Amino acid sequence: MNIVLLEPDDVQSDLWLIRSKRQLQHLREHLDITVGQNLKVGVRNGARYTTEIVSMNEQEVCIRPITEEVVPAKLPVHLIVALPRPKVLRRLIMDSVTLGVERISLIHSYRVDKSYWQTPFLQQLDNYVTLGLEQAGDTIAPEIQLYKRFKPFVEDVLPNLISKESPAYVAHPYAEQSMPVNIPHACSVVVGPEGGFIPYEIDLLTKNGCQAVSLGNRILRTETSISYILGRLFS
Amino acid sequence: MNIVLLEPDDVQSDLWLIRSKRQLQHLREHLDITVGQNLKVGVRNGARYTTEIVSMNEQEVCIRPITEEVVPAKLPVHLIVALPRPKVLRRLIMDSVTLGVERISLIHSYRVDKSYWQTPFLQQLDNYVTLGLEQAGDTIAPEIQLYKRFKPFVEDVLPNLISKESPAYVAHPYAEQSMPVNIPHACSVVVGPEGGFIPYEIDLLTKNGCQAVSLGNRILRTETSISYILGRLFS
Repeated sequence: MNIVLLEPDDVQSDLWLIRSKRQLQHLREHLDITVGQNLKVGVRNGARYTTEIVSMNEQEVCIRPITEEVVPAKLPVHLIVALPRPKVLRRLIMDSVTLGVERISLIHSYRVDKSYWQTPFLQQLDNYVTLGLEQAGDTIAPEIQLYKRFKPFVEDVLPNLISKESPAYVAHPYAEQSMPVNIPHACSVVVGPEGGFIPYEIDLLTKNGCQAVSLGNRILRTETSISYILGRLFS
Repeated sequence: MNIVLLEPDDVQSDLWLIRSKRQLQHLREHLDITVGQNLKVGVRNGARYTTEIVSMNEQEVCIRPITEEVVPAKLPVHLIVALPRPKVLRRLIMDSVTLGVERISLIHSYRVDKSYWQTPFLQQLDNYVTLGLEQAGDTIAPEIQLYKRFKPFVEDVLPNLISKESPAYVAHPYAEQSMPVNIPHACSVVVGPEGGFIPYEIDLLTKNGCQAVSLGNRILRTETSISYILGRLFS
């Protein structure tokens, strides 16, 4: 947690209150805060501030904003990723948000177990986004959409996302073309499930405008590949 | 698991046996293997093969090597990372190995809790390496070393690792210089603990030849930053 993310409702007066149990616990255990100390705070979908701790007790920490700070820019990327195992979902969303992904679509694919769409973790996406924003020092939540059917997404939604100025790349170990490096434009990145997309899916993706690109001859886990790809595309 | 990693002792005759419970369980649950099917196999610190399944029962799978395959090249990087929380250690080692890091040093730092050095997980490093190799399709284990004291490592070990041909970069959010992109040479990469290196440590690192470089104004988790940095450095 590199900033404390507050809701717009929490910052209506001159003094602001931090009341979330999770945030208070983190501040006590990891930052060892004291009155008079500075604290970095963001307002969801708003600005970022350096604040000063005015008072604190068991239930709340009262802060006063001092200076406004720059919110980090997003990466101009739409991440389209096969819904991962529930255990991986939290980390994947949190890390994608931390890295600055502008928009996330979770899609179905042949190797996504259908039960994954029933996981209660999908109700927790907002919390994972909050954790990712607090890690990055960002305040702007990305848009997240779910597409439970692969073919309608690829045929009806994906083509509208692709343009000359914003191509789409699907990471595919057996592609001949390499994933580009340090691109000066926006793009969509499509990442498959554990075990990869099946050939039919790669076919459908490329027929609908995706470029199949390789990351070399090492096969990475989904979560690992996302930060590796973003480091490579937006250096 | 994209290859099954066998020990040199397992491949002394014409037919090889897979007997590890973990590997057998994975083959059954995730790959649904049958006799006659091909299976990718590597020999630790040796070659990689396409094999054919000759027979199988509850206790073992018997395979015959067919063709030798190329083992993926390593990245010419020495990753020097502050020992993470035990929970993170497994994933960090596994991912670093999967990404192809040639050498890993786990070091102490002010913000590394001393209890981390007592974790039984440190006895499991070889297993994490195996998982990383099996994910990547690699067979060559990186060298891993532990340095329980920061200052002696930085003053006595680090300078010998640094040269014009192989500089060392320490990721530091407040550095003015940016982390380089797509470098054509080897390097060492130094990554701090959660909460970052303290100013004294950054000072000591730079005095001993490290270049402090920034990854932008988003603060990434250790594990996330490693794959992001490697994607950026070795595109």
